[in-house]
Amino acid sequence: MSDTLATIQGRTSANNFDPTHHMSEAQIQELVELTLNTPTSFNMQNWRLIAVSSAQQKANLRKLAFNQAKVSEAAVTFIVVGDSMGYQQLPTLIKPMLDAGALDQAAYDGWIGMCNGMYNGNAQLQRDEAIRSGSLAAMTLMYAAQAKGYVSGAMIGFDGAAVAKEFGLNEHEVPVMLIAVGNAAPGNWPRKVRRSLAQAVKTV
Amino acid sequence: MSDTLATIQGRTSANNFDPTHHMSEAQIQELVELTLNTPTSFNMQNWRLIAVSSAQQKANLRKLAFNQAKVSEAAVTFIVVGDSMGYQQLPTLIKPMLDAGALDQAAYDGWIGMCNGMYNGNAQLQRDEAIRSGSLAAMTLMYAAQAKGYVSGAMIGFDGAAVAKEFGLNEHEVPVMLIAVGNAAPGNWPRKVRRSLAQAVKTV
Repeated sequence: MSDTLATIQGRTSANNFDPTHHMSEAQIQELVELTLNTPTSFNMQNWRLIAVSSAQQKANLRKLAFNQAKVSEAAVTFIVVGDSMGYQQLPTLIKPMLDAGALDQAAYDGWIGMCNGMYNGNAQLQRDEAIRSGSLAAMTLMYAAQAKGYVSGAMIGFDGAAVAKEFGLNEHEVPVMLIAVGNAAPGNWPRKVRRSLAQAVKTV
Repeated sequence: MSDTLATIQGRTSANNFDPTHHMSEAQIQELVELTLNTPTSFNMQNWRLIAVSSAQQKANLRKLAFNQAKVSEAAVTFIVVGDSMGYQQLPTLIKPMLDAGALDQAAYDGWIGMCNGMYNGNAQLQRDEAIRSGSLAAMTLMYAAQAKGYVSGAMIGFDGAAVAKEFGLNEHEVPVMLIAVGNAAPGNWPRKVRRSLAQAVKTV
């Protein structure tokens, strides 16, 4: 039992990880299972994770991420991948709801039609959606990790094109972020300074 | 006390909100205070929220969001704003850490130099970062709302240029998402179908 507000308040960006800590495939999958609950536009679920956990692949990834030690010292470093063409998968993804009678044909067709109407031919929105969905999933993953007793550290400092090539992303996929997850080693910073409430919100 | 895993599993995208429910400024601020814990690249905190809670402003926003009822029926609809030029604020934002001795001058200068090196002149990364930071904050906001007993519904269906104009965003700011927050009314859907674990992750 891990209180949600304590999880939000307790999560910080870790830099130091215990390099002797390993996570099992079941432990990795538990985090992904939780991350699947993340919302996406039209439920298009246009993200996926590559869980980099072998020593060899972590070393490969670290080289493409400015040699940041946490990439290989964490038990697993996730590559969060967003799909800019994810809307094209929507008919397949929501078909189970049609088949189960949760949607009728008109609602199914309307849902897909609205989605296509928004994304077809709109390259900026397609790119944005890959980043947006990937980032929403990334945040869920970090809270899930925190709640399970791990620490996490998100990174955008990496060579995106090289990561895409090395880890087999297709041409529509964007590496949105790396997230190192594992047990903490000593020496992590406390939370960095934050703005005041007045700087972060205006009520109208 | 709201268990984190239950919060992640229990959050769904609400469409029906109790239109008689109002949230106080203190209740809104409590959610924003929690959202401030969200991580951002270099801690640049390049997002802000506009909490649209007055009947008049909710009506204005609803018109720009394809007349989606939840925009005005929810107690508050947040406009999540990302700043593509947020990296330029970093020297000011982390100055308190220098002043407090948490950073020495060399570390302060190095931090800012690395950040500028990444973002200066890189329009795609600037845009991506506005979307990325705004989305991370949005996800925290939805979990904070869920933990406090509210429901939430995120939207990308709105006229971004019109919202930017109506709500006074500057030219570098991007409206990343709308998030309706309030008490649920009856009739909200259960979670929509999700992919299998095998479709969402590959371990290497």
